[in-house]
Amino acid sequence: MNVYKRYERVSAMLKILSDNPNTLYNLNYFMNMFNTAKSTASEDVEIINSVIEKFGFGKIITVSGAGGGIKYIPINSLYNYRSFVKEVCKSLEDKSRIIPGGFLYTTDLIYSPNIATKIGELLSFPFQEKSVDFVVTVETKGIPIALMCARALNVPLIIIRKDSKVTEGSSVSINYVSGSQKQIRSMSLSRRSLKRYSKVVLIDDFMKAGGTIKGMMELMEEFDAEVVGIGVMISTAMPMVKLISDYISLFILKEMDEYNGIIKMEISDWLK
Amino acid sequence: MNVYKRYERVSAMLKILSDNPNTLYNLNYFMNMFNTAKSTASEDVEIINSVIEKFGFGKIITVSGAGGGIKYIPINSLYNYRSFVKEVCKSLEDKSRIIPGGFLYTTDLIYSPNIATKIGELLSFPFQEKSVDFVVTVETKGIPIALMCARALNVPLIIIRKDSKVTEGSSVSINYVSGSQKQIRSMSLSRRSLKRYSKVVLIDDFMKAGGTIKGMMELMEEFDAEVVGIGVMISTAMPMVKLISDYISLFILKEMDEYNGIIKMEISDWLK
Repeated sequence: MNVYKRYERVSAMLKILSDNPNTLYNLNYFMNMFNTAKSTASEDVEIINSVIEKFGFGKIITVSGAGGGIKYIPINSLYNYRSFVKEVCKSLEDKSRIIPGGFLYTTDLIYSPNIATKIGELLSFPFQEKSVDFVVTVETKGIPIALMCARALNVPLIIIRKDSKVTEGSSVSINYVSGSQKQIRSMSLSRRSLKRYSKVVLIDDFMKAGGTIKGMMELMEEFDAEVVGIGVMISTAMPMVKLISDYISLFILKEMDEYNGIIKMEISDWLK
Repeated sequence: MNVYKRYERVSAMLKILSDNPNTLYNLNYFMNMFNTAKSTASEDVEIINSVIEKFGFGKIITVSGAGGGIKYIPINSLYNYRSFVKEVCKSLEDKSRIIPGGFLYTTDLIYSPNIATKIGELLSFPFQEKSVDFVVTVETKGIPIALMCARALNVPLIIIRKDSKVTEGSSVSINYVSGSQKQIRSMSLSRRSLKRYSKVVLIDDFMKAGGTIKGMMELMEEFDAEVVGIGVMISTAMPMVKLISDYISLFILKEMDEYNGIIKMEISDWLK
């Protein structure tokens, strides 16, 4: 029978918890893994709690009762994300990001695993207590941050397609009007990918007038899903009146002046 | 000045290393964080090494010299992935995955963050030592596993689009012939997303004849990129002769009999 030292047990436990955010671990799991008594395992959890708190790694939630245990929440306060948020905001203001036509180049940021992880964690933060069943995004650019948000919430990701793909079976399609360009578009989701009456969070990388998110909401209705939250990485200040209300964004694009090469980006109030 | 106990230092270090795979940390970083002498920090690293080894968490690589340090590799041996690989293989043989037209439904697996993480780590394994600059995939279904592969290798992800999107600036497009369906298709990649002379790994979820991967390779040529590895989650046994050679896959689809509801999936030899 293996006997482990405290620092071995504690560091292994923290790694397992951290690799599996929002996943409930019964204390027995660790008692069996390390051959410890319940009292020792409880002490170990206390220590992990204090380490997580000291270093701002998130938090541990204890669920009591027979089916209880502990789970790790990667983001506890926004404090530790402040310098990250500032850095990303500054990077987003780099005028070389302006793409002819008035678009903003962001894929170098949102396709970077480290950045996508933190963006996803930030987007998960307001929805941690909402009993989310699925994170839903629409292809393509929002997928990495949506996946990392789903990882933080420990739920599967669902990707809405812009055209129905034969390889995913029967699907539900809707048409929607893109808010800013007033074009008719369609999106579709495979029937079997989303259980009826699920609670979903909608995630996207960019929102202007909100037409795409509104389309996603309509599609969710077809599945009798309840949208418990909407999060986008960047929303634009204009138009002020969006097609949807009740969303969170991390950054607000106040101004983009293509001709003079000026981007003004702000951090959303709730992140400050 | 804060003084930390060994179990606090060691568990915090392991969490930081584990959250940032393949990222080089100079010992000074931890010495400053924990206010320790070099000898103590070195001992802590030794302990982390032993914990990682005991629990099969991967490995620590020590890079010597002035610019040296330690980095964490999430996958060291395939041993710890065996039960996972068997479970996924079994799940892939579930006949309810057969989609009319002879397609295989896999998005419930590959869009699940936990599973995508492990698949991505497995796909990174053969390319750990190849000095990879970017992981490249083509939208849409392969994105989650490609992102997690990029995370394991600590490199950015690049997503090739199936039509050129105005929002990413000037792009390079190619036409290619889908290997199994003999249709002309196109894919494109924004000029600025991939630096010339980069070393890339191509990742996709599914490969039949290899037409898509071949298209990706041609597109990489346009960027003077060197393809140092190709990895797919599932390849098909038929056609035996593919349009590309020199790829790795995790699973091989030996047979799918739509009418009798039979799927035969095998684990690739290198994973056994």
